[in-house]
Amino acid sequence: MTDFQDWARLVAITMEQTLSSLLPTSGSNPQRLHDAMRYATLGGGKRVRPMLTFAAGLVADADIDRIKVASAAVEMIHAYSLIHDDLPCMDDDVLRRGRPTCHIEFDEATALLAGDSLQALAFELVSTHKLSDSAAAQLKMIQIFTRACGSHGMAGGQAIDLANVGIAITLPELEFMHMQKTGALIRAAVLLGAQCGQPLNEQAMQHLDRYAKCIGLAFQVVDDVLDCESNTEKLGKTVGKDQDANKPTYVSLMGLAPAKQFANDLLNDALDSLNSFDAKADRLRQLAEFIVSREH
Amino acid sequence: MTDFQDWARLVAITMEQTLSSLLPTSGSNPQRLHDAMRYATLGGGKRVRPMLTFAAGLVADADIDRIKVASAAVEMIHAYSLIHDDLPCMDDDVLRRGRPTCHIEFDEATALLAGDSLQALAFELVSTHKLSDSAAAQLKMIQIFTRACGSHGMAGGQAIDLANVGIAITLPELEFMHMQKTGALIRAAVLLGAQCGQPLNEQAMQHLDRYAKCIGLAFQVVDDVLDCESNTEKLGKTVGKDQDANKPTYVSLMGLAPAKQFANDLLNDALDSLNSFDAKADRLRQLAEFIVSREH
Repeated sequence: MTDFQDWARLVAITMEQTLSSLLPTSGSNPQRLHDAMRYATLGGGKRVRPMLTFAAGLVADADIDRIKVASAAVEMIHAYSLIHDDLPCMDDDVLRRGRPTCHIEFDEATALLAGDSLQALAFELVSTHKLSDSAAAQLKMIQIFTRACGSHGMAGGQAIDLANVGIAITLPELEFMHMQKTGALIRAAVLLGAQCGQPLNEQAMQHLDRYAKCIGLAFQVVDDVLDCESNTEKLGKTVGKDQDANKPTYVSLMGLAPAKQFANDLLNDALDSLNSFDAKADRLRQLAEFIVSREH
Repeated sequence: MTDFQDWARLVAITMEQTLSSLLPTSGSNPQRLHDAMRYATLGGGKRVRPMLTFAAGLVADADIDRIKVASAAVEMIHAYSLIHDDLPCMDDDVLRRGRPTCHIEFDEATALLAGDSLQALAFELVSTHKLSDSAAAQLKMIQIFTRACGSHGMAGGQAIDLANVGIAITLPELEFMHMQKTGALIRAAVLLGAQCGQPLNEQAMQHLDRYAKCIGLAFQVVDDVLDCESNTEKLGKTVGKDQDANKPTYVSLMGLAPAKQFANDLLNDALDSLNSFDAKADRLRQLAEFIVSREH
């Protein structure tokens, strides 16, 4: 996997540069807001979503400049969701990526507006930069992307997550919540990456969609396993919080060993859905392995 | 102005129906989130921005169905901004449009996510529904709209507003803040309305832009005057808050009479910028008068 690790590092470096150039410049008015947007987006994170966008782009021979913009937009949405998720009225967390959360480093109002602004900027980017040869196709991409972020996607999943605290839910209910909370944006990351390239046929897009759903869910199952097994230093965020908060997790509902097995089953499903693709999908395959085997 | 009042009432009714049909249905999952989105968007408000979109659409013979979607999207952004603005970490307000604010009626986390979801939904609508004969032109509309909402527009203006509390600022600084905080979205409301119709030439768009800038600023000046002169019952929101919060206003910087004169000057500038338009711009003219002469 050395080759994969080199590639992943390159994506992370490229992403950092791209985000830095697409975010408002440091010191520009309103300075504190722009500094908070940069603080929350730059200098950290696993960049899993950008990796997915880059890898899906390879499948469709996508232009690298388009991929950079699309993945930066997805990562800005991810960063905004973390800022708002960490606020006192939500998860009330003080540590993220090994650093103070945005509202601790700045203040609550600035963090709120930084999240709001990052969401607007993400959609501004995908409407401003050319991402497809067809403007109509690009409108469709924005539609998929925006829908993944709203009440039928990420934000809806967070609302369900909040409503689930302290109540007994079933595995299908947990799955539905995660399909929205983290799955929707991961799915958008994959689909947008592919759509930046040469048009794929309907069946190929469905296979990618299936891959994205499996890997999105696997990502969450592994998160729950790590939250149970790992320690705060390694993870860079407060550990055991979900259990403390009496939030249902795959580990609490299935047990630790079955949860690990479930993650592996999802990995196999993800790999199976790539069967019709040639070597162009190898980065997606390696990424699936990476997501399931990661230790933080 | 009876004719204008009838028209304004019709726009308000149309807007209520359109918003209701474009928002997630009541009771759909996640229920509390969707109820909060509907609560904050429906059943109130002056609908000034939709009126501007409708009136600008008339200038360009825009299709009514396109105007409905564009104005609903703008109004959802406005509703989201009010939800977040009312949160304890921002203006900490409990009354809005004569009713409890969203976080009082629901809770802070739900209000936060309702605002986030409304922003995503607004952009989903303008990418999903056909708003222009040209997909490329529609991408440009989304670009203008998203930019008006972010850190160089509405959210940026809110950040500057917060930073201004308790410090001495100049009139140009106050104007810059308002041009972003309320002006940017009002400008988008006008431009989107016009762009839903037959393409206007560059000069005509610049005249509309000038109209929008004047009327956006006038709207804020009148707000400050009303906040100083009116009472809470009439306004449906807590009055005198800006003064209490030691926020600079046009009244505090200019005095009451000069602020009223300034609003009238802006009205005249707005009307002047419509000189090259025929009777199709009459609603825009009446709307300008209405905005400056309103009592709440």
